[in-house]
Amino acid sequence: MAAIIDGRQIAEEIKLDLKKDVEQLRNLNCVPNLVVVLVGKDPASQIYVRMKTKAALALRISSETIDLPTDVTQEQLLKTIDSLNKDNNVHGILVQLPLPAHIDEKAVINSIAPAKDVDGFHPVNRGKLQTGEDTFLPCTPLGIQQMLARSEIDTNGKHVVIVGRSNIVGLPLATMLVQKQAGANATVTVCHTGTVGLDNHTKNADILIAAAGRAGMIAGPMIKEGAVVIDVGVNRVDDPSSDKGYRIVGDVEFESASIVASAITPVPGGVGPMTIAMLMFNTVKAARQLSQA
Amino acid sequence: MAAIIDGRQIAEEIKLDLKKDVEQLRNLNCVPNLVVVLVGKDPASQIYVRMKTKAALALRISSETIDLPTDVTQEQLLKTIDSLNKDNNVHGILVQLPLPAHIDEKAVINSIAPAKDVDGFHPVNRGKLQTGEDTFLPCTPLGIQQMLARSEIDTNGKHVVIVGRSNIVGLPLATMLVQKQAGANATVTVCHTGTVGLDNHTKNADILIAAAGRAGMIAGPMIKEGAVVIDVGVNRVDDPSSDKGYRIVGDVEFESASIVASAITPVPGGVGPMTIAMLMFNTVKAARQLSQA
Repeated sequence: MAAIIDGRQIAEEIKLDLKKDVEQLRNLNCVPNLVVVLVGKDPASQIYVRMKTKAALALRISSETIDLPTDVTQEQLLKTIDSLNKDNNVHGILVQLPLPAHIDEKAVINSIAPAKDVDGFHPVNRGKLQTGEDTFLPCTPLGIQQMLARSEIDTNGKHVVIVGRSNIVGLPLATMLVQKQAGANATVTVCHTGTVGLDNHTKNADILIAAAGRAGMIAGPMIKEGAVVIDVGVNRVDDPSSDKGYRIVGDVEFESASIVASAITPVPGGVGPMTIAMLMFNTVKAARQLSQA
Repeated sequence: MAAIIDGRQIAEEIKLDLKKDVEQLRNLNCVPNLVVVLVGKDPASQIYVRMKTKAALALRISSETIDLPTDVTQEQLLKTIDSLNKDNNVHGILVQLPLPAHIDEKAVINSIAPAKDVDGFHPVNRGKLQTGEDTFLPCTPLGIQQMLARSEIDTNGKHVVIVGRSNIVGLPLATMLVQKQAGANATVTVCHTGTVGLDNHTKNADILIAAAGRAGMIAGPMIKEGAVVIDVGVNRVDDPSSDKGYRIVGDVEFESASIVASAITPVPGGVGPMTIAMLMFNTVKAARQLSQA
């Protein structure tokens, strides 16, 4: 049976280190400050924002949420971001996605000052990722890389197969893991909905990363004996036996996969907590750089 | 025997179209203008710059080379670029690489106005490539994509294996070919010097792209029967029988490869001419956008 990679525990370890960094910055009169902009009242977004704010406050990172109405104009939103860009007391700016359809998401992301872009979604930060320059790496890919490193799973020379080509996970993670760097230097394959014969690819993976957003799409027979499986999926499936009427599952069919894999991340409790920990990491980094502490 | 993909001929077709575009712009009082900055006297760089300028002039694109001495300071170089950024008559700026060791290449690339970055090397343009936004795509990857499209080689659902992870070819090409777009939608694997068992990867490729910069590293037995082989290598090998004492070869061992492959690009006369044609394409695009013609 596969070993469980405990994302909650690893995230706690990282946050313990960050807490010390925050105290150091505070002693230098810099209070790291993350501002989250939330447009509208999407329940899932509200939960995510609350989790981020809570994590920040637990580390003594100052955190504020700016709630904007669903019908806020793009101009008003850009004006809000502009004032956050200019505010020296703000170190990290996060606009919770998705945005309402009338707002151009890319225009909004492009308006965030790259030095405060703790999500790592600004083109200039994405571009620096590719050339290996110092930048804010997007939180989920960075969390996965950290989780592997802290579990002593070496990516060097391994064949990593990523299922999913999103701008948030699949593509930046592929670019990160292929770099000639510690914690990387893997041979990387990116699969997606256009891939023919997905099984043939997943079965070649030493490290298989499921980031497609489809419940249980990766089952045991698609996995090589002894592979490491990282499940990025967060899918809601109906479950009448649950109080809520649903439960959250990953992209991997956990039971069949854990018979074949050597190590696997659970959902929940795997990649999710790592993503939030890395958002805190990026916020502390932004504060340090902007305050030159 | 493999069909030869004639890069020279395809590049000529593209340039014929571009010539019409240039005339249209000229009729609107916009003369597309490419400025090349050449630092020092590296003979290879001088040849490349001359080829680019010659190609521009043949299309009635205005082109000028600014020659700077090897010992130019970084400050002076950045000042030169700044004045080109501000000059409304300049549409494309290309700094010929490599630069002397005392100059920070990344700082120089980052100083070019993204709207004039016809090489597509600025982080903001690299980042937009990843998210599928309109941008200047780097010339060699774009040339390869165009060469495949104009040879009616469909990448959709194919397994593309790229050998080489450079910022100029391998990484941007991988990101381009994996997009959910026409001329892309391939499953993409990136191999490199850290790859274990390279043959196992290359033999899986429907389309194999050799961009490692090592003469003859891909031989026939490493190629799947019927695969398409694109050779990006430009390597100088000793050849006493040649007047120059050397000849230019690719990364692919042409003779053994062309027995196995269904189609192959020669070196020279394959990817090289395409790269220059796409530089012209980007220059015309920059002129059109900046003049709003």
